[in-house]
Amino acid sequence: MIEEEGCTLIFLGVDGGATKTVAIIADENGRLYGVGYSGSSSHHFVGYESAKMNVLKAVETALRYAGMSWGDIDGVCYGLSSVGDTPMDTEIVRSFVSEITPIDFILVNDVVNAYYATCLGEPGVVVVAGTGSIAYGRSGIYEVRVGGWGQLIGDEGSAVYIARRALQEATKACDGRGEYTILIDRIPRALGFKSLEEVTFNLMTMKISLIELARLAPVVAEAAVNGDRVAIDILKESGRELALLAIACLRRLRLEHGIVGASGGVFKSGALVWDTFKSIVKASYPHVEFTDPIYGWQPAAGAIVLAAYKHGIRIDRRVLTRLFEAIKVEEAKL
Amino acid sequence: MIEEEGCTLIFLGVDGGATKTVAIIADENGRLYGVGYSGSSSHHFVGYESAKMNVLKAVETALRYAGMSWGDIDGVCYGLSSVGDTPMDTEIVRSFVSEITPIDFILVNDVVNAYYATCLGEPGVVVVAGTGSIAYGRSGIYEVRVGGWGQLIGDEGSAVYIARRALQEATKACDGRGEYTILIDRIPRALGFKSLEEVTFNLMTMKISLIELARLAPVVAEAAVNGDRVAIDILKESGRELALLAIACLRRLRLEHGIVGASGGVFKSGALVWDTFKSIVKASYPHVEFTDPIYGWQPAAGAIVLAAYKHGIRIDRRVLTRLFEAIKVEEAKL
Repeated sequence: MIEEEGCTLIFLGVDGGATKTVAIIADENGRLYGVGYSGSSSHHFVGYESAKMNVLKAVETALRYAGMSWGDIDGVCYGLSSVGDTPMDTEIVRSFVSEITPIDFILVNDVVNAYYATCLGEPGVVVVAGTGSIAYGRSGIYEVRVGGWGQLIGDEGSAVYIARRALQEATKACDGRGEYTILIDRIPRALGFKSLEEVTFNLMTMKISLIELARLAPVVAEAAVNGDRVAIDILKESGRELALLAIACLRRLRLEHGIVGASGGVFKSGALVWDTFKSIVKASYPHVEFTDPIYGWQPAAGAIVLAAYKHGIRIDRRVLTRLFEAIKVEEAKL
Repeated sequence: MIEEEGCTLIFLGVDGGATKTVAIIADENGRLYGVGYSGSSSHHFVGYESAKMNVLKAVETALRYAGMSWGDIDGVCYGLSSVGDTPMDTEIVRSFVSEITPIDFILVNDVVNAYYATCLGEPGVVVVAGTGSIAYGRSGIYEVRVGGWGQLIGDEGSAVYIARRALQEATKACDGRGEYTILIDRIPRALGFKSLEEVTFNLMTMKISLIELARLAPVVAEAAVNGDRVAIDILKESGRELALLAIACLRRLRLEHGIVGASGGVFKSGALVWDTFKSIVKASYPHVEFTDPIYGWQPAAGAIVLAAYKHGIRIDRRVLTRLFEAIKVEEAKL
């Protein structure tokens, strides 16, 4: 699908995390040449070899799709989860990326992709709320990362957090310790169990994982749409927790003006999360500017923006929008 | 240590859970003849064979200590965790207890031991807050069980809950999302790590478990004594959550008057938890009567009370106090 030949620079951008890996090939004008998709590239979840294989598969698929080889690529950026979590994590990821990449590459955490895909390198902050939650912001040479402490204790506002809060409120309601909620019935049904007892038994015996619970987030969103008070409160709480992530970044960067972006499936859970998020951030930082939340494969565009940036090329919002549109078309084909 | 011979009935009581198993031999007058102690008797934590072996070890030690054999025992009651959680759990525990017990036995959940050791079978409720949390109450033939949905989502007010809330607040403070707390430094130090990042990394990679975090509860209690606002709030929240367990039981049993008991290490975490607990329960149920919290090996006395009760013998508070004193002496020897 090479649209035209020219002297524009071609970039490869990869976005990978706990659930999926996406590679895209695009030029500085926002033209998309190829995409590749595969499974988890988190060594914590699938181990070193599978993480490496999934990145390789996404990259090779994108190259084949574009009818290109590594020699056609002017710059490459990988935004992969766990990079920067600990020095050891960074080294593990750097090691497998080196093994499959014959040219120089940029390696960052996937939250940095989300930042470049929403803030375009301008002073600002992005909050990512998918399975987990984390925020990242930049202002010139300063950068901050907030949240992302893991599903067991934190990741406030994330899909797993929403799911756990929903289970907590449903069990409380079941006991007579909390307000009635339709989640008592909807949670087991959504997970294919007969009762809440069955759900918690399977959780305790590790037959289902906390990560798998993330699929309850849309169930909570649906219950909220149906007017369930408990579900509404959980989503508002989630919006508030995500706002705290943004506010902490803005404060630490001393940014009164700036862009506030959002990325991840939780922001798709209806207007409740997003509206609560915006109003709480606005209350502390009235002059910031919000960009529309991005989802799915869109954060991979951030890797293109960053790769271009390192070549001295600034991708603007018009070009980014063009790239987003092309990505959406490809994603819909899957 | 048989203190005297007589025609009194001799009972064996066993209390076992995730962390320990205690067996005691006592008579209807509160005289203690022997005690035995061993590790976990929870098949979820250590598997079928180890759970069985630990119960057997505790029982055999108690018999040997008392210089008795099964023939000397008039009644036996086991209060073991997981009984009643699911029909399968009950069958698993019943199966291994049958294999080691040559006489008829009573089998209940360990929360029932705690109830008999605090309420003596009278209308009332006990709240247990150790590693996990659960409440149980009786009024005549009616019984209710509330809470105990597991560490991953619930067990509100328990040691694991306190530990997780402490980690959550410490990471928030570290990010600049929450109030400063001395827990930022005290948590890693207490667990033998250099930083909060190391703690959460080891949690995420499952090198430390949620259960092991329970040892942070006394760290939170100490921080509260030192005036740490965040620690104080967590302990109050814990007291409130435990009160909700008691209130739900009282409501479902329609008990306006009754005994409210407490059991488990969390109630040892200073007056903050216990005072908050009492004041919130009192606000809804002004006529209930509180008994002092029990700890350590004391719940095993509840198994003696229940075994005696099934023989038509009512153990009163004076006899129970005598038994508690004797148990405390034995426990101190360990």
